[in-house]
Amino acid sequence: MQHIGFIGLGTMGAPMAANLLRKGYAVTVWNRTAAKADELVRLGARKAATPAEAARAADAVITMISNDAAIAEVYDGDNGVLAGVREGAVIFDSSTISPELARRLAADARTRGAAFFDAPVTGSKPAAEDGTLVFMVGGDEATLRKHESILLAMGRKVLYMGESGSGAVAKLAHNAIVGINTVALVEGLAIAASGGINAAQFIELVQSGGAGSKMADLKGPKLLAEDYSVQFSLGLMLKDLRLASSLSDSLNVPTPMLEAAKSVMQTGQALGLGDLDLSAIAKSYEQWTGRKLNGGGGDK
Amino acid sequence: MQHIGFIGLGTMGAPMAANLLRKGYAVTVWNRTAAKADELVRLGARKAATPAEAARAADAVITMISNDAAIAEVYDGDNGVLAGVREGAVIFDSSTISPELARRLAADARTRGAAFFDAPVTGSKPAAEDGTLVFMVGGDEATLRKHESILLAMGRKVLYMGESGSGAVAKLAHNAIVGINTVALVEGLAIAASGGINAAQFIELVQSGGAGSKMADLKGPKLLAEDYSVQFSLGLMLKDLRLASSLSDSLNVPTPMLEAAKSVMQTGQALGLGDLDLSAIAKSYEQWTGRKLNGGGGDK
Amino acid sequence: MQHIGFIGLGTMGAPMAANLLRKGYAVTVWNRTAAKADELVRLGARKAATPAEAARAADAVITMISNDAAIAEVYDGDNGVLAGVREGAVIFDSSTISPELARRLAADARTRGAAFFDAPVTGSKPAAEDGTLVFMVGGDEATLRKHESILLAMGRKVLYMGESGSGAVAKLAHNAIVGINTVALVEGLAIAASGGINAAQFIELVQSGGAGSKMADLKGPKLLAEDYSVQFSLGLMLKDLRLASSLSDSLNVPTPMLEAAKSVMQTGQALGLGDLDLSAIAKSYEQWTGRKLNGGGGDK
Amino acid sequence: MQHIGFIGLGTMGAPMAANLLRKGYAVTVWNRTAAKADELVRLGARKAATPAEAARAADAVITMISNDAAIAEVYDGDNGVLAGVREGAVIFDSSTISPELARRLAADARTRGAAFFDAPVTGSKPAAEDGTLVFMVGGDEATLRKHESILLAMGRKVLYMGESGSGAVAKLAHNAIVGINTVALVEGLAIAASGGINAAQFIELVQSGGAGSKMADLKGPKLLAEDYSVQFSLGLMLKDLRLASSLSDSLNVPTPMLEAAKSVMQTGQALGLGDLDLSAIAKSYEQWTGRKLNGGGGDK
Repeated sequence: MQHIGFIGLGTMGAPMAANLLRKGYAVTVWNRTAAKADELVRLGARKAATPAEAARAADAVITMISNDAAIAEVYDGDNGVLAGVREGAVIFDSSTISPELARRLAADARTRGAAFFDAPVTGSKPAAEDGTLVFMVGGDEATLRKHESILLAMGRKVLYMGESGSGAVAKLAHNAIVGINTVALVEGLAIAASGGINAAQFIELVQSGGAGSKMADLKGPKLLAEDYSVQFSLGLMLKDLRLASSLSDSLNVPTPMLEAAKSVMQTGQALGLGDLDLSAIAKSYEQWTGRKLNGGGGDK
Repeated sequence: MQHIGFIGLGTMGAPMAANLLRKGYAVTVWNRTAAKADELVRLGARKAATPAEAARAADAVITMISNDAAIAEVYDGDNGVLAGVREGAVIFDSSTISPELARRLAADARTRGAAFFDAPVTGSKPAAEDGTLVFMVGGDEATLRKHESILLAMGRKVLYMGESGSGAVAKLAHNAIVGINTVALVEGLAIAASGGINAAQFIELVQSGGAGSKMADLKGPKLLAEDYSVQFSLGLMLKDLRLASSLSDSLNVPTPMLEAAKSVMQTGQALGLGDLDLSAIAKSYEQWTGRKLNGGGGDK
Repeated sequence: MQHIGFIGLGTMGAPMAANLLRKGYAVTVWNRTAAKADELVRLGARKAATPAEAARAADAVITMISNDAAIAEVYDGDNGVLAGVREGAVIFDSSTISPELARRLAADARTRGAAFFDAPVTGSKPAAEDGTLVFMVGGDEATLRKHESILLAMGRKVLYMGESGSGAVAKLAHNAIVGINTVALVEGLAIAASGGINAAQFIELVQSGGAGSKMADLKGPKLLAEDYSVQFSLGLMLKDLRLASSLSDSLNVPTPMLEAAKSVMQTGQALGLGDLDLSAIAKSYEQWTGRKLNGGGGDK
Repeated sequence: MQHIGFIGLGTMGAPMAANLLRKGYAVTVWNRTAAKADELVRLGARKAATPAEAARAADAVITMISNDAAIAEVYDGDNGVLAGVREGAVIFDSSTISPELARRLAADARTRGAAFFDAPVTGSKPAAEDGTLVFMVGGDEATLRKHESILLAMGRKVLYMGESGSGAVAKLAHNAIVGINTVALVEGLAIAASGGINAAQFIELVQSGGAGSKMADLKGPKLLAEDYSVQFSLGLMLKDLRLASSLSDSLNVPTPMLEAAKSVMQTGQALGLGDLDLSAIAKSYEQWTGRKLNGGGGDK
């Protein structure tokens, strides 16, 4: 039986760890707020006092952390994953981090005899619960293939993206599209609503037509209901757009669409929408147009 | 048996008229290039010498024309639809025109005792052939409901959008999203490719993840194959983005995403891509990055 | 002594007509609000009942009107300039109109035996009063040279731009730069202020350095004083940016800077700033950053 | 007599050091390429073997280096400025660096008992030669005032911007405006040229009107002559725009104009224009419009 060290039990991490337990893995968990580990313990997990301890006996370590700074805290120092990880073990980081950090962690892991993979996911809370995440992975392909069954215990697909950092690059490029498509949906709705079209009918049209998208399916109903409860927060999306913009700068890729979406999202952040769902960017357009986006129109 | 006058037998119009014949309508056709009418005649259509003549005996007139100028030519003057249309008839225009023009034609039709509807479609050639178009319609709702079976002979859904011009508004807002989503896909691919990601793997990721969209499904394979044969031309999309931009200006809606997409598409037009599929915008990004978007990466 | 018909006595037109009187021209004026003509009458002008009457005896007609719609009203119909203008007369329109309209009016004038010039100006109210306007002129050059002394009675420079419509093109391209430079100034100030820099010191830096511009000189002090009294209104600038954008579309020129400035100005219009000076766009940035642009910083 | 250590003898640094010698300062110089120091030695400078040695005896150290990475090389390590600087000395860095780096260097200097100032300049080679640079300075104001005569030996104005990092913030905000104004000028010219206007006449108009700017004065003649010899390179401007964009992200300031200019400059970099003057961005617009910007038009 393989031993897994699982670090980071937030909205995504907790159900991912639970799926590993359900599939029969021995899982040792660590979370900054220790209380969050208790439910996993009830499901059969062991609780570690530090990231290093969670890593110590593990064949594979999985980390799912919200930002670059916290990543360093979990990986570095005497209590960090890198201090505890065994020779021959693999490490999967499923956070969204910069390609530079991914490459730095891969180099550090190599000096300990371990293999690090940047393995971010697409799919939010429901997909983490259902085990239908998609992993995009950077690192050594042969080693990945030996261990990908661990990822498939939490997801439905593992896409190999290339050498270390490639998972992070793919995630940022992917999320740039997510951010742009979402603002596009809202902007289109703003045009339609300002032109007197009923919002529900417009969203139905979008979903029926060439303008359809995952984001239209996910966010359309939220926009109609003005339900801005978080699936993926505007603030985290803005963070990803900034990372993607910085990456594009370093690769010398002109990205006018990304920059436009970033500027719009920044106006949302400035309006205090950072902790709401990213679909709340509708409020920026409502302010600009002086009109509810889900209001009136048509003759219903 | 209802009589239909059908005007405009291009890529979209010809299969739409054929579907009407197949469903048992009596159809009289007119096309600027008369030869194009011959195949419809073989299927049972009558051929008219002028738009007015095609309209004369019709219970319903349908027009499917590529631009505003041609629309005026078909509607106005002694040989135009408005000169021939019967009192009590309905007119559906399925072209993509400006809301102003739609409202003008509706007013003109009213003076002849006819009811005009702006009824643009989403769906391209295959949908026109399969009869799975979606119509978005502006005009009087009660009158529309009495006659929508005609549209449903050519499509799978009729969405009522509001008073005259609302169909045109909805179409432009919808197509703004289509244009933005397409450029977003290409821009994301440009980031990924420049970061060393294999294009096929990135497109698979997009289709699997939150970045998925109708355009990703339709254009992803074309981008990988560099197959820029036309489904919807870059030049026509640019025309729609300009109409959408002009509409947004008149409605005082800030549209940074639309403007960014329009600027990018204009660089494509300048590169001579106007007659290729809109996915050919990839060539602008290839020029900016000095790299094939569908090349290398990964280790395939 | 040459006779001038002067039509349009607004902020710009009134001092321009006064300068013509001062230089000894016989001037017949017309204004929609007749009362505005009274001060000119005190200075020696004759008052006409219609534009046609103002044009009737004139060697040269000058029009200075705020928008395209009003232009048509002044030129067309039985009471319009074109109905009254003498054969051999010249017409200068100093409004900011679209190149299309300029070419249409030139063609119409030609049928009456008159020569029409689009002759917009750069310079605002003070320049109109001091007679230091700069005219940019489209039309026949030889005819212009014969009559340019009339323009030089109101301005300091006459720049010949090319055939009919070229004055309008030059004006829109010029004002695009004005709009962009103004938003650039405000955006730079927003970065500086958000980074803790004192606004007055930043404006001094801009005026001392490579970032200097006419707009920095004109609008810098207004920004510091939050004095948004109108030199050139945000709404009129937005109108010009829209005309410039529409012109660029028709010329197939990608204009990402213009589009960005237009989107920003539209957010200002939506905030109700249309009737303030265009420097009031600072309020959009204040809202986005949650901070006064002319506040704190430094340690003064 | 005050002793100055001067480090970095590039296009800007060499004439700045020469001015210090001319004003009677004792100057010890260091440059990575030692040969470049020889001309300064002829003018009376001493040559040091390392940055530390140049700093050792100096009352003030001045550094003028092209990028963040090189800065670290000059400041850190056993041979670096910080290893050599005397207690009580002042350090002025006139490079364009990020505010973070400025604050880090200020903190490091403090631990050695020295005072660090970020003191970037506006003005290019001619201003460095004439001693008419403008310095914008971040750090302790009282200490600055005691030593600003040193800066005034190389420039005409010292603007105090606030605490450490403020000079860097001001420089980036300033240069964002420079970059935007330059692209604006070129974009305006592209509209005008595409509309048939003669380039020389348009540039004269810009310089005469509200669109005037330092950049129009500096770059206008270069655009007409297609003389893209470097005053300030496109590549360095792009670097500054990226730093400004990154700074704006960290300050949460939406900067649509900056992002648009950055995207345009990136297309120029991709065309291989990075080592030409930033006015060479005209070549991007020429490619987009398929037309020379300084060509034809008018009837000259």
